[in-house]
Amino acid sequence: MEPVKIGLLGLGTVGGGTVTVLTGNAEEIARRAGREIRIAHAAAREYDKSRISGLERIDKISDDAFKVVDDPEIDIVIELIGGYSPARELVLKAIENGKHVVTANKALIALHGNEIFAAAQAKGVTVAFEAAVAGGIPIIKALREGLAANHVEWIAGIINGTGNFILTEMRDKGRAFAEVLAEAQELGYAEADPTFDVEGIDAAHKLTILGSLAFGIPLQFDKTFTEGISRIEPLDVAYAAKLGYCIKHLGIARRTPDGIELRVHPTLIPHRRLIANVDGVMNAVLVKCDAVGPTLYYGAGAGALPTASAVVADVVDITRALTTDPTNRVPHLAFQPDELSDTPVLSMDAIETAYYLRLLALDSPGVMAGIAGILGEEGISIEAIQQKEPGAGDTHVPLIMLTHRIKEGDMNRAIARIEALEAVQGAVVRIRMESLEG
Amino acid sequence: MEPVKIGLLGLGTVGGGTVTVLTGNAEEIARRAGREIRIAHAAAREYDKSRISGLERIDKISDDAFKVVDDPEIDIVIELIGGYSPARELVLKAIENGKHVVTANKALIALHGNEIFAAAQAKGVTVAFEAAVAGGIPIIKALREGLAANHVEWIAGIINGTGNFILTEMRDKGRAFAEVLAEAQELGYAEADPTFDVEGIDAAHKLTILGSLAFGIPLQFDKTFTEGISRIEPLDVAYAAKLGYCIKHLGIARRTPDGIELRVHPTLIPHRRLIANVDGVMNAVLVKCDAVGPTLYYGAGAGALPTASAVVADVVDITRALTTDPTNRVPHLAFQPDELSDTPVLSMDAIETAYYLRLLALDSPGVMAGIAGILGEEGISIEAIQQKEPGAGDTHVPLIMLTHRIKEGDMNRAIARIEALEAVQGAVVRIRMESLEG
Repeated sequence: MEPVKIGLLGLGTVGGGTVTVLTGNAEEIARRAGREIRIAHAAAREYDKSRISGLERIDKISDDAFKVVDDPEIDIVIELIGGYSPARELVLKAIENGKHVVTANKALIALHGNEIFAAAQAKGVTVAFEAAVAGGIPIIKALREGLAANHVEWIAGIINGTGNFILTEMRDKGRAFAEVLAEAQELGYAEADPTFDVEGIDAAHKLTILGSLAFGIPLQFDKTFTEGISRIEPLDVAYAAKLGYCIKHLGIARRTPDGIELRVHPTLIPHRRLIANVDGVMNAVLVKCDAVGPTLYYGAGAGALPTASAVVADVVDITRALTTDPTNRVPHLAFQPDELSDTPVLSMDAIETAYYLRLLALDSPGVMAGIAGILGEEGISIEAIQQKEPGAGDTHVPLIMLTHRIKEGDMNRAIARIEALEAVQGAVVRIRMESLEG
Repeated sequence: MEPVKIGLLGLGTVGGGTVTVLTGNAEEIARRAGREIRIAHAAAREYDKSRISGLERIDKISDDAFKVVDDPEIDIVIELIGGYSPARELVLKAIENGKHVVTANKALIALHGNEIFAAAQAKGVTVAFEAAVAGGIPIIKALREGLAANHVEWIAGIINGTGNFILTEMRDKGRAFAEVLAEAQELGYAEADPTFDVEGIDAAHKLTILGSLAFGIPLQFDKTFTEGISRIEPLDVAYAAKLGYCIKHLGIARRTPDGIELRVHPTLIPHRRLIANVDGVMNAVLVKCDAVGPTLYYGAGAGALPTASAVVADVVDITRALTTDPTNRVPHLAFQPDELSDTPVLSMDAIETAYYLRLLALDSPGVMAGIAGILGEEGISIEAIQQKEPGAGDTHVPLIMLTHRIKEGDMNRAIARIEALEAVQGAVVRIRMESLEG
């Protein structure tokens, strides 16, 4: 059989990794796919020739990506340029030209996926994006295919390796956020501008995608609640540990009778949960379904070769389905395009979760009763309350509370009232808490 | 579009679960698959009408399974009878009649898979078996599709829930094997005849399948080394814990320059590994690949609904690929049938692993030096050695040794020589040890 011909856009980290995997494992991949998969045309403005193994086996390299998407020889375009533009234009052009597309671009899919999938649908081509979420972990395949029998109840994922590395170091070594971030940047785990990672935007892109796949709703990045880890203090990491919890930066998607929750935020979870033991830069996604119960998927969420693993798996999938009638292929968002649901995404105010609260209160009789009274009036039950020892000469003592589940709107009201108390110093620290019970 | 018509063989635990999932989640499954999936014909000699939800939505129930595989209306036959016969005859007949087959029967696939897949290949139909390994965890899909870009280095799996439950209880509560087994039987986790579970045969069936998928070799159950957990003593569980290890019953498949390892046995693994924290009846499979590195898949390995989840996922896959040219479908053993490899499966003597050894030796000068001398002569390096305190009045003391990696044949010679020493009482306890380093 004729080889499948790949057009590769981008020869950076993931692009280089893709060349390495496709050429280094070419024989084994062909034994699986039944056809040779060849990089017929690549495009990159500049690239490091010395660092990419297998480069000599690419038939042609251009400096203009549009030449690749217009090359009539190409069957599948792999987009590894990243960012919104010209990635969006290139992908749409490739689709218009009748080519299948593989991309690792989570931002592009989260923000422009609905438009891109509609275009692909109309043209009868596939846009595959396994590498866009949790790198090399085949979580998109699990959600779209492996769990297809199930009603998904919720998903909780550690889907940003940088954030998980920082929180792991803070917990294991008692270090401060800024210090660990600087080290992560030195190690190459974090970008020079770390905003996307530490403020949760990258995780929100991925969670938006996971939520759509799980619940059959259109991609709605703008409705995903996003809170980062930059305000987590070593003190809270330590208090959480003493209470038997770990702080993880989770993406959570949950189906409720009122609508869908899509939220990314630091979360206290019981340390005995398997996912609480996922440390360093590793990723994991826990999926709770009605039939199979909880399943967890763990692996490297980033890096040249792990991401390339997912990119190439998509290429093999498309190769195997080249002769499939387009209406029978796995739908982009797991559900048939005319079967997506208009279930609303809930605002954060309407979302129910438990809370860890920390505040500094005057060490004096009646203060704790006053705080507990406000919580009670707002309908919030306290699961545990701990008053820490005051430092020498301190007039205020740290007060830690764990609450039962309550709507965020009610909690916001309670916190505002507590912060207004004269006996309370500064802001109330609030970290959401989930049991992740299977 | 016409509904896809299912013929269901067996209405026991998994058969009943499959009815419940296919009918209970019918609408959601159809929204994914693009077609209604209907149980048109089921067969069971006897079944518990009161315990199966959705039974009323089956079009017809016969008492003869051969009527179902001969029913011209049926597109996909689901075999959930179990055992070798008549399951094998039914599956072969279904294939002969041009029907696709889904089965959860690990014994059938491990022993007769080569024959069954050849017949399916000749007829252009698919035999899917996701439910045969690790229940609801989509590990077969991960190996055949999600990791298709990779060269698999090794697999280590907790693939028998009964065994994992017993070992977890032994560790957490210091209980003896026989006592926990009796409890597992009461809880319904273990069969009245527990041989398949506790002697590792069930795990060996599953490992045989995983090994073929990972390395592209024909199924060779007879070459899979199998050792159960029935001789594990609480003493060894406790000593292992003190040394920082957990004893898990693992199925291990590894590629070496000399051939493929396929082995099921109790294994000491470092307790900090994620898989060491997989407890109770849960299953997990750790896969080490060249590109993606380690990935882990965790979930329920048995039970009516989890197994049904995998069965129905296979049905959805087949439905989606009904129009695919048969030569382009995902190959049964991950590699194209004419691309399977004749790499030999190694005998246990030729397999290299580290060891935990425990023996009772006379508490007298020179004894330890004699034992260490034998190990040295056989080329075995000792990583750690511990002499425990003798009990009051005991002449012999327990000696624990951890060794570096060495061929099992060499270890067998050394153990025979040590057991022949006059100063050594009884047999040497030997438990293999793996670092499972990612």
